[in-house]
Amino acid sequence: MLSGTAALADTVATGDLGLVIERATGSVLLIDQSERAALERIEGLGDLSHASLVYSPDERFAYVFGRDGGLTKVDLVEREIAARVVQAGNAIGGAISDDGELVAVSNYEPGGVRIFDADTLEMVADIPTGSKTIGLVDAPGRRFVFSLWDAGETWIADMSGGAPEITKIAGVGENPYDALVTGNGRTYIAGLFGEDGLTALDLWDDTPEPMGVLPGYGRGEAPLPVYKMPHLEGWALAGEEFVLPAVGRHEVLWVDARDFTETARTQTHGQPVFAMARPDGRQVWVNFAHPLNDTVQVIDTVTKEVVHSFQPGPAVLHMEFTARGHEVWISVRDAGKVLVYDTQTFEKLGEIAADSPSGIFFTARAHRTGL
Amino acid sequence: MLSGTAALADTVATGDLGLVIERATGSVLLIDQSERAALERIEGLGDLSHASLVYSPDERFAYVFGRDGGLTKVDLVEREIAARVVQAGNAIGGAISDDGELVAVSNYEPGGVRIFDADTLEMVADIPTGSKTIGLVDAPGRRFVFSLWDAGETWIADMSGGAPEITKIAGVGENPYDALVTGNGRTYIAGLFGEDGLTALDLWDDTPEPMGVLPGYGRGEAPLPVYKMPHLEGWALAGEEFVLPAVGRHEVLWVDARDFTETARTQTHGQPVFAMARPDGRQVWVNFAHPLNDTVQVIDTVTKEVVHSFQPGPAVLHMEFTARGHEVWISVRDAGKVLVYDTQTFEKLGEIAADSPSGIFFTARAHRTGL
Repeated sequence: MLSGTAALADTVATGDLGLVIERATGSVLLIDQSERAALERIEGLGDLSHASLVYSPDERFAYVFGRDGGLTKVDLVEREIAARVVQAGNAIGGAISDDGELVAVSNYEPGGVRIFDADTLEMVADIPTGSKTIGLVDAPGRRFVFSLWDAGETWIADMSGGAPEITKIAGVGENPYDALVTGNGRTYIAGLFGEDGLTALDLWDDTPEPMGVLPGYGRGEAPLPVYKMPHLEGWALAGEEFVLPAVGRHEVLWVDARDFTETARTQTHGQPVFAMARPDGRQVWVNFAHPLNDTVQVIDTVTKEVVHSFQPGPAVLHMEFTARGHEVWISVRDAGKVLVYDTQTFEKLGEIAADSPSGIFFTARAHRTGL
Repeated sequence: MLSGTAALADTVATGDLGLVIERATGSVLLIDQSERAALERIEGLGDLSHASLVYSPDERFAYVFGRDGGLTKVDLVEREIAARVVQAGNAIGGAISDDGELVAVSNYEPGGVRIFDADTLEMVADIPTGSKTIGLVDAPGRRFVFSLWDAGETWIADMSGGAPEITKIAGVGENPYDALVTGNGRTYIAGLFGEDGLTALDLWDDTPEPMGVLPGYGRGEAPLPVYKMPHLEGWALAGEEFVLPAVGRHEVLWVDARDFTETARTQTHGQPVFAMARPDGRQVWVNFAHPLNDTVQVIDTVTKEVVHSFQPGPAVLHMEFTARGHEVWISVRDAGKVLVYDTQTFEKLGEIAADSPSGIFFTARAHRTGL
């Protein structure tokens, strides 16, 4: 592993760096997108199964959310852990405020959201919900939005005044299990485990009303056993349509971005897990649930047809595009590799050894809402 | 001005940095968005009237396009000029390829586009057009798109193969004077000086056909003397509509993003120059042409009404939002200041002394297409 001054010199600019979650070893791998290389392995982050992270606005620090309730602040420049707290017993994701000053984590046990100072990781607000809490996202105006599995509610925590000001929205549906916010921070969409369909909220509305969308989208009607509920963060906005991984079906759904009506379906190799749009929206890249998770398919968003299909290797877990979409980086867990592909030619450009890699996160995420 | 090791430590992370063009002195001011401070002045960039710049993917280097044909590579980490060439007699803007390897400049004299190695600034392609060349933008797939003032053509230069492969599109209209590409890199829109209306091209089409849009949008029908043609880069995509500065009118136009039909107009304080959408699209901030250029107005994109109006000072030339929109930075040339405002409360958060500031460019632009 590189170390010392020469290596550090590579990281004086942080705009093209990233981290790969190494789930089995509780470590993250610092990667350089331009060099297509690993720079350093940083260890001691605890249980990183189903881990995710966000970045500070200066793209220096990553906040890694572990399944064990660990919140770890990683310094990409010094290549070390800057701070770490175990803030709950069981956690599921987090977010950072638009001004970069607050980091929020949603917890199963104890159920709720805790908000921390991004500099010190001191807790500045504790928002118990009495429920497993999921689907935590950031929204403009120093707000966080999240949903309650047990209560079927969505709460908006406005932190602009310091102390949290909570808006509670009831009737969101039975057992929301995940959620997303659109890239402009306006529409919050919760997936429901307990009923078919999803619920959308217009966060621009002073009193958002739950809107049922896509009746029939959900596991309740799935014709096949659901090996893995799709990641809603994988929802792709391609031009004027969303592309959704179907639940328990070998297809992706196309949905009008204005009214959420279904416009088409495309048959796929397996049950999709992530359907990710290339940043320009011209392609959607899809990976699949076990046992068909060795394959990736590329769909052209104009023809809605699969234009490329290939096998990167066993257990393709995640895909991350470079900010302007010229490359995609794919983690292949059981091959112990991150593979780099040209999105125009589909040519393989490089590979990086990684220990059971899962999520890949480039620092460009620091500049986007709802990730 | 800060300098030396201690200061450099502030800039090892480059995600929240930016440059302010100081047009009168041929210098740029390195700014830190999080600190709301200037870090260093870098001098010797030549004629920076009407200057613009782009960033390398790692957010370390800026490529500054001067009016005098100067192309200057500025190192934000070392805080110095890394390289500089005077590549033409008279230039107007440039772009960087999606992979960050090529920098292109559009020139009036000699008319054409020249493309340079982003590392060395050695010229790798010379594309004479026999015309003043304007509206140069990048597009996915290592392409550059630009238009010919005299010939009324748009050319697409595909650099994916090394040597430029040129596609020429005729019949774009009389005297295109500026152009933009939508954020997804799909739609190229040229403004016409010689006739009313604009021309749109679908870059996803293998053989793009000029489509006339917004007949009547142009100086030909302007009821007032046109003090300054609006910047098309100022076009704002707010939700499902574009917001355009009208030409020679005290209003902005709202245009459906799908079919470019006009949907509404909003009366403004003066002739708009830039109409910039906050990244979430909820607000549009507008500045104005001389002699009303001391004022900024904020329009709510839901009600389409002016919700805030204020006077930052004499000669408001440019506005730049932080990547997630919580702040806007405004250059007030004749006050010698850059002012920082909270976009939610409109409260002034800070100010930075600058010498005749014009364009403000945050490094987050490195991760976006068509800027």
